[in-house]
Amino acid sequence: MKEKKVVEEITSMSEDFAQWYTDIIKKTQLIEYSGVRGCMILQPYGFAIWENIQKGLDERFKATGHENVCMPMFIPESLLQKEKDHVEGFAPEVAWVTHGGSEKLPERLCVRPTSETLFCDYYAKIIQSYRDLPKLYNQWVSVVRWEKTTRPFLRNCEFLWQEGHTAHATAEEAQEETIKMLNVYADFCENMLAIPVIKGQKTEKEKFAGAHATYTIESLMHDGKALQSGTSHNFGDGFAKAFGIQFSDENNELQYVHQTSWGMSTRIIGGIIMVHGDDKGLKLPPRIAPVQVIVIPIAQHKEGVIDAAEALCAKLSKTARTKLDKSDKTAGWKFSEYEMRGVPLRVEIGPKDIEKNQAVLVRRDTGEKIFASLDGIEDTVSDLLDKIHDNMFETARAHREEMTSVAKSYDEFKDIIAEKGGFVKAMWCGDVACEEKIKEETTATARCIPFEQEHISDVCVCCGRKAEKMVYWGKAY
Amino acid sequence: MKEKKVVEEITSMSEDFAQWYTDIIKKTQLIEYSGVRGCMILQPYGFAIWENIQKGLDERFKATGHENVCMPMFIPESLLQKEKDHVEGFAPEVAWVTHGGSEKLPERLCVRPTSETLFCDYYAKIIQSYRDLPKLYNQWVSVVRWEKTTRPFLRNCEFLWQEGHTAHATAEEAQEETIKMLNVYADFCENMLAIPVIKGQKTEKEKFAGAHATYTIESLMHDGKALQSGTSHNFGDGFAKAFGIQFSDENNELQYVHQTSWGMSTRIIGGIIMVHGDDKGLKLPPRIAPVQVIVIPIAQHKEGVIDAAEALCAKLSKTARTKLDKSDKTAGWKFSEYEMRGVPLRVEIGPKDIEKNQAVLVRRDTGEKIFASLDGIEDTVSDLLDKIHDNMFETARAHREEMTSVAKSYDEFKDIIAEKGGFVKAMWCGDVACEEKIKEETTATARCIPFEQEHISDVCVCCGRKAEKMVYWGKAY
Repeated sequence: MKEKKVVEEITSMSEDFAQWYTDIIKKTQLIEYSGVRGCMILQPYGFAIWENIQKGLDERFKATGHENVCMPMFIPESLLQKEKDHVEGFAPEVAWVTHGGSEKLPERLCVRPTSETLFCDYYAKIIQSYRDLPKLYNQWVSVVRWEKTTRPFLRNCEFLWQEGHTAHATAEEAQEETIKMLNVYADFCENMLAIPVIKGQKTEKEKFAGAHATYTIESLMHDGKALQSGTSHNFGDGFAKAFGIQFSDENNELQYVHQTSWGMSTRIIGGIIMVHGDDKGLKLPPRIAPVQVIVIPIAQHKEGVIDAAEALCAKLSKTARTKLDKSDKTAGWKFSEYEMRGVPLRVEIGPKDIEKNQAVLVRRDTGEKIFASLDGIEDTVSDLLDKIHDNMFETARAHREEMTSVAKSYDEFKDIIAEKGGFVKAMWCGDVACEEKIKEETTATARCIPFEQEHISDVCVCCGRKAEKMVYWGKAY
Repeated sequence: MKEKKVVEEITSMSEDFAQWYTDIIKKTQLIEYSGVRGCMILQPYGFAIWENIQKGLDERFKATGHENVCMPMFIPESLLQKEKDHVEGFAPEVAWVTHGGSEKLPERLCVRPTSETLFCDYYAKIIQSYRDLPKLYNQWVSVVRWEKTTRPFLRNCEFLWQEGHTAHATAEEAQEETIKMLNVYADFCENMLAIPVIKGQKTEKEKFAGAHATYTIESLMHDGKALQSGTSHNFGDGFAKAFGIQFSDENNELQYVHQTSWGMSTRIIGGIIMVHGDDKGLKLPPRIAPVQVIVIPIAQHKEGVIDAAEALCAKLSKTARTKLDKSDKTAGWKFSEYEMRGVPLRVEIGPKDIEKNQAVLVRRDTGEKIFASLDGIEDTVSDLLDKIHDNMFETARAHREEMTSVAKSYDEFKDIIAEKGGFVKAMWCGDVACEEKIKEETTATARCIPFEQEHISDVCVCCGRKAEKMVYWGKAY
């Protein structure tokens, strides 16, 4: 009875994808809604996923020479206004602090929506000579954007993220850093989250407010919508000029620095849910799953079962994040519960298994049952977790391939977007007018100009003029 | 020349302790001031210390069964007002958000000064049955308190901390948790930071706004002032009644939960500086020092020296956080620089050492020089780091003992506070009037009623009436 109930509580994906998403988030206790509009409470299971993401990214940042710092959460209004495009992009959606205690502040402070202006102000103070460069800093904080409509993980008024901010002596170095960090994100998504991504550049219309160029990794969700999963910006010397960040070069001449910034946020947890999940619930990629292996004793009232399960749990804990559920709930209830929570591998052990010196391994991704000898089972499990990762990645890639179409004419383009969804590869003349027309008529946007270009036709899919680039188009979160 | 300059830039402790503190913070690049009053920028070296503190505490929290979550940074005004004492304590110093973009918010939001109200609102939602208890949650965030006068680490408008918030079925469990976490803090301070602490209870006057009882660990700074280094509060069921946090017990009767909260912040970095530092600069406890060992090549232009230094650095890196400085600065400059930055152990290696298969180890705490064979040097270094920790702890303890006095009369009390400073142990009648008189006339406050009571006399040091408790008094940061 209970097993059924757990499963029934999740709406089917095909029936109502949005409701399925909300059900998963609530039933698996990733978040709880708070009393403040658009601000969520990250519950232990949700936060543990974020901690693993943090750990994986932070290691990669440090391995590429970056250091962590922490800036204040407030930006004085005058500081936010220093770079024209930047303030225009962000001012409409910032939260303003006007009072400290009962006193009105002499100047309004905004709660950071992003911290370029704070880093620039800081860099202007601490960078004097070429010997001070590069500065390769990152911070892990939360930011606030007063969005009109919100959705857990995907669009929140407050969300957690990391923001890298770097300063370099030359334009070439800044460009190299921008691409390097995009590659770090892509590697992280593919090798830790099992999410395949398309790497490319944003169009002028879609780039970050104040950036010279924005690069992105785009992933495809199960419902055929795209998710911008991480971005890396090259600012050129635009911010440096606005904030006066100069250094003496080796010839003792004053030069402006070249800057980058790059970020990934809790939004990616929404991506994990929508790329991998199914009607049974969450399906977590093994490398960031808070619990990688759940040990479930079968007929646990029988002598020796709990002892064997505990010994097995201890053994597996050496190589995998393992938990034992010896609560008095039925084994069937436990199966459904941990399937719903997306635990990659279930390990069952009962009296018969103990007799045969084995355990039963059940994969969350395929449902496959494997009988494994208890001798060396920790290696079997380690290997299996890697296989599960690989299979999840391949499944997601195959789904993306299936949902990626080519459009040579505008009619074809509109049909695909309206009926099939997914990514549409089509040529573009480079004119923002076509981009806007497409968005207005189909709601699809230019997701990115991919690094891996293909020649589909000679002309723009929208206007028929000479094509400049092949673009990935799609509806997006 | 350069060595001298580095050292000269730090004001002597005995000359001007406050200036010494500021010099250290700036010269060692722990923080930089930001454009927002009272909000600091944690620079890489300062943040790396915080990361190590976080890691050490977080491990201890998880080992005692706690899970991390993350609450929003905003508290609606109506929520803050639910517990009367709490709002009275915090409202005068909160930052108020009044606008989102260009629109006025329907209700003001305060930026969290602490998150009891948010956790209570959450607990009221998620706790129904005794099966849901206990809830043992913690979060790592920054909080904002609009202080009039600020000082880096010690008193900031924004600071980083962790706040644990727990809910229990019984008063006994809550009390047990409160003391357990105080002990975790004490253990952490003594075994990781080499800071000896006094454990005890705060007086009614000094307790947390809304708490039933507040417990504290108090440490003594080099200048004889006390620093409250961590607190743990037992709320009883006061918040539960204000927020309606009830559960059905095993007899299906509704009960209120009993709660605790406990916190430690970046303030403790101020403590590390003021307990251990000297006129040469910072002296970091080895277990949280970002760099535990600095390898400095001597006569590095000579053949084989850099190679040997690199090999040594690689060897030591296996057991200690080790860095090699092979920059073109003089060895003397490097000695002063890393002494100032508080690196616990310096390792010198030059042509003569290579010949003798040795390196020279120099302790930051004692200045002692040790010639160590390169064979097994990683064990020598590990042992030495433990010895440095122990010695730093003992030195701090001895200083505290020396600066702890006993006062039997009020005249004696006043003399000690005015001339010697430090902790004064004296009896107290329990009346807040005496506490207030002492504070007004001496500026000393009741630091804590220590768990380890001593009988000094039968009467209150201030009024002469019957004494209730022995109290540690002192001037405080």
